[in-house]
Amino acid sequence: MALRALRKTRGCRGVIRALHKGSEVVPSPQKDSMKRVFSGIQPTGTLHLGNYLGATESWVKLQDEYDTVLYSIVDLHSLTVPQDPTVLQQSILDMTAALLACGINPEKSILFQQSQVSEHTQLSWILTCMVRLPRLQHLHQWKVKSTQQKQDGMMGLLTYPVLQAADILAYKSTHVPVGEDQVQHMELVQDLAQGFNKKYGPFFPVPQSILTPMKKVKSLRDPSAKMSKSDPDKLATVRITDSPEEIVSKFRKAVTDFTSEVTYDPAKRAGVSNLVAIHAAVTGLSVEEVVYRSTGTDTAHYKRVVADAVIEKFAPIKSEIEKLKMDRDYLEKVLRTGSAKARELAYPVIQEVKKLVGIL
Amino acid sequence: MALRALRKTRGCRGVIRALHKGSEVVPSPQKDSMKRVFSGIQPTGTLHLGNYLGATESWVKLQDEYDTVLYSIVDLHSLTVPQDPTVLQQSILDMTAALLACGINPEKSILFQQSQVSEHTQLSWILTCMVRLPRLQHLHQWKVKSTQQKQDGMMGLLTYPVLQAADILAYKSTHVPVGEDQVQHMELVQDLAQGFNKKYGPFFPVPQSILTPMKKVKSLRDPSAKMSKSDPDKLATVRITDSPEEIVSKFRKAVTDFTSEVTYDPAKRAGVSNLVAIHAAVTGLSVEEVVYRSTGTDTAHYKRVVADAVIEKFAPIKSEIEKLKMDRDYLEKVLRTGSAKARELAYPVIQEVKKLVGIL
Repeated sequence: MALRALRKTRGCRGVIRALHKGSEVVPSPQKDSMKRVFSGIQPTGTLHLGNYLGATESWVKLQDEYDTVLYSIVDLHSLTVPQDPTVLQQSILDMTAALLACGINPEKSILFQQSQVSEHTQLSWILTCMVRLPRLQHLHQWKVKSTQQKQDGMMGLLTYPVLQAADILAYKSTHVPVGEDQVQHMELVQDLAQGFNKKYGPFFPVPQSILTPMKKVKSLRDPSAKMSKSDPDKLATVRITDSPEEIVSKFRKAVTDFTSEVTYDPAKRAGVSNLVAIHAAVTGLSVEEVVYRSTGTDTAHYKRVVADAVIEKFAPIKSEIEKLKMDRDYLEKVLRTGSAKARELAYPVIQEVKKLVGIL
Repeated sequence: MALRALRKTRGCRGVIRALHKGSEVVPSPQKDSMKRVFSGIQPTGTLHLGNYLGATESWVKLQDEYDTVLYSIVDLHSLTVPQDPTVLQQSILDMTAALLACGINPEKSILFQQSQVSEHTQLSWILTCMVRLPRLQHLHQWKVKSTQQKQDGMMGLLTYPVLQAADILAYKSTHVPVGEDQVQHMELVQDLAQGFNKKYGPFFPVPQSILTPMKKVKSLRDPSAKMSKSDPDKLATVRITDSPEEIVSKFRKAVTDFTSEVTYDPAKRAGVSNLVAIHAAVTGLSVEEVVYRSTGTDTAHYKRVVADAVIEKFAPIKSEIEKLKMDRDYLEKVLRTGSAKARELAYPVIQEVKKLVGIL
């Protein structure tokens, strides 16, 4: 509902007009002490139900709650694993379209492409000189991902948490919406900010995680696992761009149990509880209300009810994505304008950092 | 002699004029296939006899031999070890003054400060995503330096060879004058260039080392070791800025042996042979000529002869450094102008790299 309201005031033309009113979006440097949100998303892969309910929907809400909000398509991070250049290039625009369609509003937030703001890698080098190898080797994600690779891990995978810290600190961000898998990385960001402040005097705010009520969406095929874009089982993940037929089919094949009643009990009935959680999230109803309304419905029929609710939720987003994707020039302009605004904020921060470390 | 000739045509005012003729120095992009030299020097520490005869003197000669010559004061590399910001800031200008005084001519080469050209760290990130951790851990300098540190090594020390590769490749450099201790790092640069070309099509020239006839200057106190700015024995190293009295005193206390005759036999008589080599290098005479002219001179007296030759060689450089250091604005202008020229060359290269990897 909130999304629809936002979408009404935004629309494609509305956004273009907004781009010409940049000064209303970017706060003056004097506002540095105010609350500033930064978050990033890799351009690869299509947004799915898990991303949408877990992150994107809360990003939209944060736009109205903080002084400055920066959302970055972190293309440099996607280079940590092999990419097809043509696909990657298209993915950056597709992700831009998806975020806009979900309600990220360039009038309210700075939506930009990481690699277009060189301050990220400049600060990343300075922070790289402040962290020790074992600290990065002990991060959980490195341990998991580097052992998945045939030979020992690539350096990009080892050092990307430092680039993440630079992403955040380049804007003196105060708040970062994160998932649970990023808690260790946020500790690194906080340590780097504090380490810098200790050495060079108070400069960076120590950014805090925003613990939004993340709706953890599980795989439709294995409700013990998180819904993930990289799940090899194509039926496990519902993408925002899936057709209604695909969505119905995926929910029909969702793993539940042998009890036909609809109840909410994540510990004992993970599969059907995941459906209830999705249903509640996409309709904006409480879990109790959803369960109450489903009294007498068996799970087979309930799967169709949930699928229809998801289809209804995604339909306007899907059609907006398709509309936006036809206007490549517009998407490029959104990113260019956003990146220029981001640079305006990051440049003075990095100049100050350079002065403090003695290279300016 | 060559140096003096250069210095005559350069001088402080000559350089300022040169800065206004930038277009004569920077080649057009069409000249990319031509020979392009890149080398870097850290700003920390004063140039000494070993640097001068081993590198700086050959840098001056390369200015006349290559189409484009870039010399970078690599301040980002100096952050890999702890620095006092105030000292570092001054060192950048002092090193600029020293290089200019030694004959680096901004009319002929692009003298610039690494951190002022953001393309270095941008390319460094992309190359970081193409190298594996063990490759960097096996580099000799990492092994030595990381074990010298109290805890395990800093990430900057591990990854700086990748930044070095970016320094070189950001200009599509074809030639790099290097010392023997950099051979492994040059192999990494070559591998990264070839790896990139293999993945994205021919783009980077594979840069070659320039094996200049490096004059290896040994410590005056331990002729088995290289003369080094970080030698704890202050008598071991002759700095360009040493007073004549200091130079005489250091040579007087130079370690030789119990034979008073002046001969050249590095294997058996390392100490006196080092003096002969220094004497030959600073006078431009051959080792044979130097030994012939010293017939009948004992080593005690010979030390004074060599000291006087070094004093004579360094005197005009030393006085030029002092003159230049008084004009901070001028030194800053040299770096600013050089950095702008460097950026003009690096920018299109990095744009092309971004296109190739799919982020532009």
